[in-house]
This record gives sequence, structure tokens and C-alpha cells, in this order.
Amino acid sequence: MTPRLSHTLRSDAQDNRERILDAARAVFLADGLDVPMRAIARRAEVGPATLYRHFPTKELLVTEAFTDQMRACQVIVNEGLADPDPWHGFCVAIEQLCAMQAQDKGFSAAFMSTFPDAIDFATIRTSSFTGAAELIRRAKGTGRLRADVVLDDLILTIMANSGIQAATPAARLAASRRFAALMIQAFRAAPESSPLPPVPRLMPFTWPDR
Amino acid sequence: MTPRLSHTLRSDAQDNRERILDAARAVFLADGLDVPMRAIARRAEVGPATLYRHFPTKELLVTEAFTDQMRACQVIVNEGLADPDPWHGFCVAIEQLCAMQAQDKGFSAAFMSTFPDAIDFATIRTSSFTGAAELIRRAKGTGRLRADVVLDDLILTIMANSGIQAATPAARLAASRRFAALMIQAFRAAPESSPLPPVPRLMPFTWPDR
Repeated sequence: MTPRLSHTLRSDAQDNRERILDAARAVFLADGLDVPMRAIARRAEVGPATLYRHFPTKELLVTEAFTDQMRACQVIVNEGLADPDPWHGFCVAIEQLCAMQAQDKGFSAAFMSTFPDAIDFATIRTSSFTGAAELIRRAKGTGRLRADVVLDDLILTIMANSGIQAATPAARLAASRRFAALMIQAFRAAPESSPLPPVPRLMPFTWPDR
Repeated sequence: MTPRLSHTLRSDAQDNRERILDAARAVFLADGLDVPMRAIARRAEVGPATLYRHFPTKELLVTEAFTDQMRACQVIVNEGLADPDPWHGFCVAIEQLCAMQAQDKGFSAAFMSTFPDAIDFATIRTSSFTGAAELIRRAKGTGRLRADVVLDDLILTIMANSGIQAATPAARLAASRRFAALMIQAFRAAPESSPLPPVPRLMPFTWPDR
């Protein structure tokens, strides 16, 4: 096998894995965790053998499908914690969580799902939530975050962001940017005259304004 | 027929009408407007004859199913416009729109749907949107609403509110109350130290905070 061919095969395997995970997230999101493995293979357009080679059990598939998203969430929270300016770290984390979610429906599924006890998912979520609570605590320490903001408000923000629709993926991302800026505005202890991001095109019809 | 029996019959007919409209909204929301009438009758647990007695054509059913919600929206906007304090009218309208939506999934469907041209739905929506734009214009006149807020931000708020989930209907309503208060905070030109509503229980698990 030449290095080039080997590379191609590895790349195909990686493509299949990603396609299976995307399909799994879409199917779990639409129909819950009880769907049969063959439904996921069909959706991913791979054979059952390929599916089972990557994920020998459904438990593994469920865990992997959502762990990727929770890890991405954790990376964002950790970057916020590493920021020397805790208020800035808090704001960037909100912006990035909203942007990631706008671009990846699976994130919402991962975030909202309450998994059966059999799958140990609680650990990584608890870790993200502990980090986010610390982000809030430090941002309050700067005096720039309202004292009555709690972790639930961050969760509320992410849930709310998941409800936003727009005519195109670009408009969807722009809408989440504006929404994140509004939420940061809401969380401020005192106002600053920071301008809002531009208004995206939300729906395929127009209305009287602007 | 005694007055009492007549009242009962009218009340049953009204119950059926509401049940059909609820079923129609749920089915249209899940599967779009192309579903057959019999699917709606089945969901509403009424016979086809009852369905057709109330709504002789699907066009009528679609229009009625969503017009109710848009009218409710318009009532809220008009109450806001009638408020002698335009900023107060603006805030109450946001609170009521979020609360109504939290209690009625059909509202989101009505709000988001883009209907086929055959159904003249645009008129009532345009009327609500024109009213909401006027509500914003007047609130800006008081100097208490940010000058860069546009109608899109109200639409963004309502879309976002539709993404909020909670463990119980009461918690869902409480979550929307808190969310509406945060959005009003975001829209303020200058801060006021108004406390936020209480934090509801969002998810059936706990996290480190509070």
C-alpha cells in the first residue's frame, strides 16, 4: 500500500465515522434514542457492517455522538476561564457557544438530552457546568456581570439560541451573533455603548421597519 | 330543547372545534401543510363528518388554525400601543408575547410559518408587524429603548423564546418570564436596577451553582 492510498483509506474511514455520527445525532434528535441501528446506517448511507465496525454497540454510538459536542462546549468554557480578563472570557464564551450551536444542530441535542442512566454522560456535562459556573463567578468578581445572574441564565441563553431560525445558514449565524450580543447586554451590571452586530434576514418575507 | 341542553351542545361543538384546531396546529407543525384531513381528524379523535362540518376545506382549517394565534398576537400589540407609557407598553407586550408562546406551541407555528400564496395570511401578519414596529418607534421616543433596536429584534426574541424547554409547564412559563426580563434588560438604553424574576427548574438534573 502506498502512503497516498493509505491516506485515502484512512480519510474515507474518517468520512464514514463523521457521516455516521452526523446521522446518529439527526436521528436521535428526531426520534429519540430508541431507534434501531439500521435506521442510522440507512440515514448515513453506509452498510450495517461499516456502522458496526465503527460503533460495535448503540451505547458507544450514543456516547460518541454527543461527547464530541460536549467536549467542544468544554473547550469553549476552558478558553473563557483561561482569559486574563474574566468578563471578556465570559462574553467570548457566550458568543462562541451561540455560534457553535447555530452551526451545529447536534449541539442542541447533546445539550438538552437527558440520557438513560446506563450511559455515563453526566460526568462530562457536570465538568462543563462546573467550569461555566466558575466563569460566572469570576466575571462577577470584575463587577461587570449582574450579581443575580446564575448558571441557569447561561443554559436559558443556549436553549433560546436553539429556537432561532433564519432563511440561510449565514443569516442563522448572524442572527445568533446579534442574539449573543443582546444577551451580553442583558447580563451587564452597568451599560456600555457597544453597538450591536448587524441585523440578519430572518424570514423569507419582509416587514415594515428599518 | 331546554336552555341547559342547548348550552351543553353548543359547548360540545366548541370543544370539538378547539380540539380540531389544536390537532391541526400540532400536525401542521410536525408534518407541514400537506397532511391529509383524515390525519387531522384522527389526531383530534373526531369523525371525518365532524371535521368537515366545522371546516369544509383544508384551506379554511389552515387559516383558522393560525389566524387565532395571530389575532392573539395582535391583541397584545394593540394593548401595548394603547398604554399611555410607551416604554411600559413595549415591555408588557414582550412579557405577554413570551408568556403566550410558552403556553401555546401553536403560536410558534403560526408565527414562523410561511404560507402558500393561496392562503391570504400575509395581511394579518403585516398588520401585527406594523403595530409592533410602531410600538418600537414610540418606545424609542421615550429615550428608554436603545436607538438601534429594530423589529427583527422582537422577532428574534420570540423565536428564541420558542427554544426554551423546562421540566414542567409551570417551569416553562417561569423560564419565559425570566427570559423576557433579560431581553427587556438588553433593550434598555440605560440600566435600571430592576430585579430579575426567579430562576425556574430548567432540566431534570441539577448542577453546581446557586
